Amino acid sequence: MSDFTNTHTVRIAWGDCDPAGIIYYPRYFEIFDASTALLFEAALGMTKYEMFKRLPFAGFPLVRTQAKFHRPTRFGDDVAVESTITFGRSSFEVAHRLTLKGDVCAECNEKRVWTVRDAEGKLKSHAVPADVLAKFA
Amino acid sequence: MSDFTNTHTVRIAWGDCDPAGIIYYPRYFEIFDASTALLFEAALGMTKYEMFKRLPFAGFPLVRTQAKFHRPTRFGDDVAVESTITFGRSSFEVAHRLTLKGDVCAECNEKRVWTVRDAEGKLKSHAVPADVLAKFA
Amino acid sequence: MSDFTNTHTVRIAWGDCDPAGIIYYPRYFEIFDASTALLFEAALGMTKYEMFKRLPFAGFPLVRTQAKFHRPTRFGDDVAVESTITFGRSSFEVAHRLTLKGDVCAECNEKRVWTVRDAEGKLKSHAVPADVLAKFA
Amino acid sequence: MSDFTNTHTVRIAWGDCDPAGIIYYPRYFEIFDASTALLFEAALGMTKYEMFKRLPFAGFPLVRTQAKFHRPTRFGDDVAVESTITFGRSSFEVAHRLTLKGDVCAECNEKRVWTVRDAEGKLKSHAVPADVLAKFA
Repeated sequence: MSDFTNTHTVRIAWGDCDPAGIIYYPRYFEIFDASTALLFEAALGMTKYEMFKRLPFAGFPLVRTQAKFHRPTRFGDDVAVESTITFGRSSFEVAHRLTLKGDVCAECNEKRVWTVRDAEGKLKSHAVPADVLAKFA
Repeated sequence: MSDFTNTHTVRIAWGDCDPAGIIYYPRYFEIFDASTALLFEAALGMTKYEMFKRLPFAGFPLVRTQAKFHRPTRFGDDVAVESTITFGRSSFEVAHRLTLKGDVCAECNEKRVWTVRDAEGKLKSHAVPADVLAKFA
Repeated sequence: MSDFTNTHTVRIAWGDCDPAGIIYYPRYFEIFDASTALLFEAALGMTKYEMFKRLPFAGFPLVRTQAKFHRPTRFGDDVAVESTITFGRSSFEVAHRLTLKGDVCAECNEKRVWTVRDAEGKLKSHAVPADVLAKFA
Repeated sequence: MSDFTNTHTVRIAWGDCDPAGIIYYPRYFEIFDASTALLFEAALGMTKYEMFKRLPFAGFPLVRTQAKFHRPTRFGDDVAVESTITFGRSSFEVAHRLTLKGDVCAECNEKRVWTVRDAEGKLKSHAVPADVLAKFA
């Protein structure tokens, strides 16, 4: 299956930055988390909130992430995040590339698991539904 | 009913501070929110997580807060937060006083509502249970 | 001097929400802080980052804020924030009104001080520069 | 050089958790960032704030991090974080292991660079000072 990509822009805020004047790196993971949600919204035509209501879906918790930080960003910077998803059976990986005026500032690769709730209400991994996959084709 | 007070200490972290080198003020509200949870834990002998499991309780959402910021704090500062609660019927107010080496840095007064879930699962306000009030006496 | 108003839209993110499924209220203050920065950007035609570089300006720390929370918002909600500023001499107040589909969800009134750095590099309050005020006229 | 380890305990807060009721993973990176600061404080006998004042030091920005999430944690959980540092010349790696009642919930490995400011005030990497290294011996 071919990859699906979504790009959006984020303004780095004053409150995202630390006393060194540059972004406090946990904020990058907040950005990447929202980027994955937006990627699904772009493909499925519904927000993550609607996914919970309309799909067999109980979240896609992260099992692994790795990131490299090449150059810092600062408040006032409008950065672009390009996110590309590759599906496994019940998991998927998303590669995020965050750029400022074309320069790569941070890269991240994350692995998540598609989950549903079982009869007792506990989270369990589940194959990504076929009609979800079809929207990414 | 007499007031109940709890005090705890918090280390201001690097990531709590902004490019001016001082605490980013929304972090104060994270601290105050945790301070209210700790105040209940001190009185009831159970964490907020256990309150959800063991009490008719679905959270105490904030309806109003007001805060004054007298002097800034910085990463590495160990601040004390003194929180005093006063109960109404289905609501309560908490006054937080945040000090550094005895100097008042910030003050906050918040009003919250005790809630339970109704038959449809929706949040509704409810009188604070008598056995909860008794623990604060 | 007449008031100046700016409005922008914010998507409430998954990570802004708490186990009750609604926004964790300190996130509102992050939104309001960014709203004040955007209001200055709308009037001055420069980002807060550029304000530090191009103006006698060392930040506008908060001295007081008060907020009321009327109804919760949830991840996926696109909320509008309307921010109106009123200037004093070296201080100003901003009233924020956060709405979802026209319904007021939260209101906030904040007071901030315009600061510059003195010869020793310490923050001190200072009259808002006349050319800044002129941009808001 | 042998490794140096520090362990501390963190209470997962209500505000650290998301609508799934489990920790929102960017909060783990805030915890790990504070854990690295505490590790230096344990070795050097000064806070990160004092490091800026007393050492040739302008921060230790992250260049790479990777994390695995084995099982979720929830508000009210008191987790232990064990952090072990290994020094290179101008960089170092810290391995964090976050456990709940002995069970490993998350693991992280981060690489950071020791920086100082050059004559123009820009950050540049620099060999970790010998007297800093000596404190970790």
